[in-house]
Amino acid sequence: MASLAFMGLDEIDTPYTAIDLARLQTNLERHRLRCQTQAIAFRPHAKTHKIPELAKLQLEHGAIGITLATIGEAEVFVDAGIDDIFLAYPLWLTPHKADRLGALTKNARITIGVDSVASLENSAQTLGATSVEFMIEIDSGHHRSGTSPNDVLAIAQALADHGLTFAGVFTYPGHSYNPEVKDQASIDEVEALTTACDALESAGFEVKVKSGGSTPSSQTTSDYLSETRAGVYTLGDAQQLELGTCGLDDIALSVITTVVSKRGDTVIVDAGSKIMAADKAPWATGHGRVLANIDARITAMSEHHATVVYPDEHSAPALGELIQVVPNHVCNAVNLVDQVAVIEDGGIVQWWSVAARGKNS
Amino acid sequence: MASLAFMGLDEIDTPYTAIDLARLQTNLERHRLRCQTQAIAFRPHAKTHKIPELAKLQLEHGAIGITLATIGEAEVFVDAGIDDIFLAYPLWLTPHKADRLGALTKNARITIGVDSVASLENSAQTLGATSVEFMIEIDSGHHRSGTSPNDVLAIAQALADHGLTFAGVFTYPGHSYNPEVKDQASIDEVEALTTACDALESAGFEVKVKSGGSTPSSQTTSDYLSETRAGVYTLGDAQQLELGTCGLDDIALSVITTVVSKRGDTVIVDAGSKIMAADKAPWATGHGRVLANIDARITAMSEHHATVVYPDEHSAPALGELIQVVPNHVCNAVNLVDQVAVIEDGGIVQWWSVAARGKNS
Repeated sequence: MASLAFMGLDEIDTPYTAIDLARLQTNLERHRLRCQTQAIAFRPHAKTHKIPELAKLQLEHGAIGITLATIGEAEVFVDAGIDDIFLAYPLWLTPHKADRLGALTKNARITIGVDSVASLENSAQTLGATSVEFMIEIDSGHHRSGTSPNDVLAIAQALADHGLTFAGVFTYPGHSYNPEVKDQASIDEVEALTTACDALESAGFEVKVKSGGSTPSSQTTSDYLSETRAGVYTLGDAQQLELGTCGLDDIALSVITTVVSKRGDTVIVDAGSKIMAADKAPWATGHGRVLANIDARITAMSEHHATVVYPDEHSAPALGELIQVVPNHVCNAVNLVDQVAVIEDGGIVQWWSVAARGKNS
Repeated sequence: MASLAFMGLDEIDTPYTAIDLARLQTNLERHRLRCQTQAIAFRPHAKTHKIPELAKLQLEHGAIGITLATIGEAEVFVDAGIDDIFLAYPLWLTPHKADRLGALTKNARITIGVDSVASLENSAQTLGATSVEFMIEIDSGHHRSGTSPNDVLAIAQALADHGLTFAGVFTYPGHSYNPEVKDQASIDEVEALTTACDALESAGFEVKVKSGGSTPSSQTTSDYLSETRAGVYTLGDAQQLELGTCGLDDIALSVITTVVSKRGDTVIVDAGSKIMAADKAPWATGHGRVLANIDARITAMSEHHATVVYPDEHSAPALGELIQVVPNHVCNAVNLVDQVAVIEDGGIVQWWSVAARGKNS
């Protein structure tokens, strides 16, 4: 993205969030080619962007469907015409949630996660006869949800006993979000799925889908997986930059912000954690980055202020100047705005509604 | 807040955010009494809650007006009938922002922050003749925005030269958000304002308002201040608990969440950083707390998962059980939801719209 002088959009007050369409399309195409080379399908996690228009671009670029986390998100995307959704989440269904899930199946193929027999029994009871399909979640070392690869058989058997559809297994190697263990996480992911699938297949269960993948691990993912659910590759963020999974020039989402205070090499801009989100992993070099200067760092962040330190006073922007800052974690940043500006050839060509923003339940 | 069994609100799907009205009112009254004892006025920062109904309760409990950070927030609160607002922020006004600010002055007394002569010149130029009043921001050690206490005279003189109204000085001792330096921050706050006011008063400027205060520092604030802008005292959060400025029983806002996965003493609940926010200060003991168990900790947080570790398996809740979790930073948590449930006597008595959510510009 070139200088912001081009915009001349005085009526749009900072801070606001923008997506560079050319960079987005490059990222989409690169992912399609990577998955083609690896010979695996991709079902990107759309919680990254929560934008139906962007999900449709992913489908145009070869995605076989999308992944989401909540029923509320699925309602938005089904409403927008997306008809194959995997909720990669161990949903605990109340009767009300089961009704909502059932309503979705009228217009889409819906698959959900399950990671215990107790949870499966609850789903069977609340859903009754259903076309909802199930994927068993395996813990591959992130130690969040997911069953041990050795305990997977009991859940598959319970699914069979209830006459429910077993679609496959999935894991999320979230420990890949660490420069030290990123490569090991990719190995752990495949090992856990292999152990689980060997047990299932030995017992006569067919495992159609073997789903894994975070953006960091998807770059080294073995072709043992049948699909990857990576999502952040679409837009990129400061975390991916620092994990080495994208370059500064690949980052497609930024927050356009104004310098409101300045002291030497340090400026305060009007984008804080209420538009950038407060994510900061222990290994991150700061609270976010600056798109035009690889050496600048956001060293502190309040709700409506970010403190940006430049290498020297000369390179720091002037009071009133616009700069583009890059959030550490794009998924949480997108979730803070109702819409994003889509920028192409030096101008805003449209606004996309973040239609699934805040759909937590 | 007692057990959640009382709610019986099966139609409300978790996660959702709730405010305990009795606790809120206790907090409001305690703050009124504290300020009365200290003989200082209070103008609470409503960015904490972004809820007009709650701001009105603050006014009923003695607040002289409210503080906000952005023009967009002020538009919401003026629209709701609040007529005395201080934007404690060094706004950089474009012509469009100046027009919006000017429109607000038709229905409210509006005061804004300024921390440099250059910024003041820009405001004077964009605003023209105006009833907007100015408070000079002083840096008292947080090193965010704010001028040095010694450089304040030039700004006051520029205000006078432009015929603009100088209302007083303010500082935000944000370094109070640290258990180690909390008490020192209260001292720094008063020292910086004293230095600035001495210089101004010696030069013949009348300083009507001497405004300070964060929630941590407001407990030890000297009566040198004429007003405090503390905001978080209203609802409390895990940060305030760990800073020692409130007890677990004072925390009025929580997220009601369901246990979706369980392994021994560890459960996964369906509230993550997309409803709790990702704030975690280096000194925090975790990503948030549990309202009913002082010894439990949120040890990890994803967007829709929180990992909660209990002291032992016996005290950990069962799959499907509801628990109330407490965000680290309530201001950012409230900003993630469109509405909050208001709970009184064991039931939801109303929903408040977080009307200024996302009003970043």
